[in-house]
Amino acid sequence: MSAIRSDLGWSTRERIVVRGKDLPGEILGRLNLGDMAYFELTGKFPDEKQSRLFNAMAVTLVEHGVTPSALAARLTYLGAPEAMQAAVAAGLCGLGSVFVGSMEGCAKLLSEGKTAERIVAEHKRIPGLGHPLHKPVDPRTVRLFEIARETGYYGKYCQLIEAVGKLKSLPVNATGAIGALACELGLDWRAVRGIGVMARAVGLVGHLLEESRQPMAETVWHQVEAQASEHLRK
Amino acid sequence: MSAIRSDLGWSTRERIVVRGKDLPGEILGRLNLGDMAYFELTGKFPDEKQSRLFNAMAVTLVEHGVTPSALAARLTYLGAPEAMQAAVAAGLCGLGSVFVGSMEGCAKLLSEGKTAERIVAEHKRIPGLGHPLHKPVDPRTVRLFEIARETGYYGKYCQLIEAVGKLKSLPVNATGAIGALACELGLDWRAVRGIGVMARAVGLVGHLLEESRQPMAETVWHQVEAQASEHLRK
Amino acid sequence: MSAIRSDLGWSTRERIVVRGKDLPGEILGRLNLGDMAYFELTGKFPDEKQSRLFNAMAVTLVEHGVTPSALAARLTYLGAPEAMQAAVAAGLCGLGSVFVGSMEGCAKLLSEGKTAERIVAEHKRIPGLGHPLHKPVDPRTVRLFEIARETGYYGKYCQLIEAVGKLKSLPVNATGAIGALACELGLDWRAVRGIGVMARAVGLVGHLLEESRQPMAETVWHQVEAQASEHLRK
Amino acid sequence: MSAIRSDLGWSTRERIVVRGKDLPGEILGRLNLGDMAYFELTGKFPDEKQSRLFNAMAVTLVEHGVTPSALAARLTYLGAPEAMQAAVAAGLCGLGSVFVGSMEGCAKLLSEGKTAERIVAEHKRIPGLGHPLHKPVDPRTVRLFEIARETGYYGKYCQLIEAVGKLKSLPVNATGAIGALACELGLDWRAVRGIGVMARAVGLVGHLLEESRQPMAETVWHQVEAQASEHLRK
Repeated sequence: MSAIRSDLGWSTRERIVVRGKDLPGEILGRLNLGDMAYFELTGKFPDEKQSRLFNAMAVTLVEHGVTPSALAARLTYLGAPEAMQAAVAAGLCGLGSVFVGSMEGCAKLLSEGKTAERIVAEHKRIPGLGHPLHKPVDPRTVRLFEIARETGYYGKYCQLIEAVGKLKSLPVNATGAIGALACELGLDWRAVRGIGVMARAVGLVGHLLEESRQPMAETVWHQVEAQASEHLRK
Repeated sequence: MSAIRSDLGWSTRERIVVRGKDLPGEILGRLNLGDMAYFELTGKFPDEKQSRLFNAMAVTLVEHGVTPSALAARLTYLGAPEAMQAAVAAGLCGLGSVFVGSMEGCAKLLSEGKTAERIVAEHKRIPGLGHPLHKPVDPRTVRLFEIARETGYYGKYCQLIEAVGKLKSLPVNATGAIGALACELGLDWRAVRGIGVMARAVGLVGHLLEESRQPMAETVWHQVEAQASEHLRK
Repeated sequence: MSAIRSDLGWSTRERIVVRGKDLPGEILGRLNLGDMAYFELTGKFPDEKQSRLFNAMAVTLVEHGVTPSALAARLTYLGAPEAMQAAVAAGLCGLGSVFVGSMEGCAKLLSEGKTAERIVAEHKRIPGLGHPLHKPVDPRTVRLFEIARETGYYGKYCQLIEAVGKLKSLPVNATGAIGALACELGLDWRAVRGIGVMARAVGLVGHLLEESRQPMAETVWHQVEAQASEHLRK
Repeated sequence: MSAIRSDLGWSTRERIVVRGKDLPGEILGRLNLGDMAYFELTGKFPDEKQSRLFNAMAVTLVEHGVTPSALAARLTYLGAPEAMQAAVAAGLCGLGSVFVGSMEGCAKLLSEGKTAERIVAEHKRIPGLGHPLHKPVDPRTVRLFEIARETGYYGKYCQLIEAVGKLKSLPVNATGAIGALACELGLDWRAVRGIGVMARAVGLVGHLLEESRQPMAETVWHQVEAQASEHLRK
């Protein structure tokens, strides 16, 4: 077997095939964008319940207002409006350990088969718990777990992260909920950060469209520059 | 009015609001990921027909096999597996004038109010026409225009690009179809490249998950390196 | 001849060769970083005068304080401190048509063989002229042209951009000077933006080191976020 | 003191100041690009010996032939030739834990004040040791340590990494040598990865200029695509 091998997609003159399905005939008009993401990650079409839950998870992560990532994208667009893909890319580069990484960390932790007590004993800081603003509860978690119950996916991983949160007296935040739900859906923890990355790509396109109509980046720049160099100008 | 102003999202302790809607209460469980993208770009929830069409447009662009963009993402992941967001970003950076840009160019061209004859007279190369592989027809275009007819969105822009294609004896490719359909939906042409960017972000996450399980990047590297330096080793 | 071919570098067990020279034996300790860039771009070691001029051009572009590009890098680092290479990448993504592109545009324009009068007649906006802050002269241009005179590289391209500036009553800015000097050195105009890109990479590393010690990104974020959403909170 | 504060650069109408020095008057024509990098990172102009050593370290990292990072940049440029800065950015995104990170890891390890024996006892894999190709010695290390001796910077960190290498029967590779030399120069280990990032930015510009004249990316794409999908076409 060749080491250069991909099962994701291929084309001939008449056919375009994605993971074994005919793109025009079996996918277009049938899968929504979240379903397609689920299909990319698992190789299976989601059923109605999986579709509802997975789409809710992804939609949660699309838009959070003027975040560092949105600001980085807007500042990049200011210098290269002809390359909006690069502005989205710049915005994605910051989705690392501090913000989106906690989702991956939570999924990995929950999938290790430990009890809540042991998790708390072994980890000082637990990914997916606590929020600087949304306390005592994160309203996204409440809603996501409600949808999980409705679709039959509120299971042992959700219970585990809630138990851990109770022991630590911290709310399960949205990234914790999504980490747990990714486990319930049987997703690979290595794919979990990716859900955040694709969702934020959607949100960043929204920010760049707004920036093109109602720009803020130049003002941000001048305002920050003036503050940053004030002590040098004296 | 402050020049630093965004209407996309904001939060308080209890509320998370996206474009005026309560994220947990009004969006989660109700919009799928494509609907959410439509909402980000237009400020309106899509109706059922708009949802079906827009999701089909976005889904078309998710996966095209081992493209330059997928390869760039995989080669980046090889060096920095701890930063998969940066690998997605690297893959997006190439969605410029050559590949995804034609979608934007087509939407812009069609929205200028010219006749097919005049468009052909004025432009030697028309974005959205022709395909190296899919000829005489691009099966994605056939299917997208079918969905457009079913949803009542096959209108003057679709007719115009088809007329231009006939005059040039070239098939309308998927980017041409999507450019026309973006016009039918009343989307800003500046948002059109963005549909490709967000869709490819989904596909790139799929490629990176496959790369983590069934890697090809290192073999690609060694194979290309050997070929590239063969003449120097003699 | 294989289409996959590069003449830049190759290695065997004992040798590492860059553009035909032995890296340890002929390059290390002999070329400085700017000389190495010149060698990468031209295939020739610069003589002393070329080295002095080219290094001055590159050094000019390293540091401009808290620019949009530096801010984008810092905001990215805030979210992914484990991937500083991605933060530099984010900062580079914005070096497009608005900021660094003028250097390339100027070099291209000057290399077309037109007179100053014709350039002015044909172009409303001329890349490399004017500066929002540095007027009536850009002190970097004065110094760069001085170094050009000292090294014998103040020639017809420098005269041409100065003549164009006089006709437009606008100062030749640093990007205009560097564009002209790139022509004097016989560099490919396609390499000119690259001088800015490599120089800014140096500067961005400086910003990220400062950010790691004396962070501003989080404060910038909160300050901008508060302003951006103020009208929504009422 | 404001939390938004930078000491790197600022400008007025007549002056451009970088880290307290007048850019046109005190820096241009005096510092080469490597010296400028040293100045950005340390706030001090290097003396002649520091200049020689630091430039050699940076130059070592510029060009390694067709690496994954160079390939990612070239494949990105294929899709977006109008945005070469984004192609450089894509190439940089992969300079993570696997390739360039070892330099940082080595510098950090050596700066912890442990003996060679203890380092070997505590770490199974030691960053900066071993090379798949260059064995039993890495010729870059030999040359870099030679320059270090000539400039008086072959000291305890170089001895330490060599002692560790001896205990492990592995050669000190170029990243190990540079990590040690960064310690000798008193550079912050957090800046060490940055030396690789800036140097590779120089090399990537070289690759993109070559790609614009003698392209390989499209052939690489088609060749890999054919191999990757061969098993699906049967």
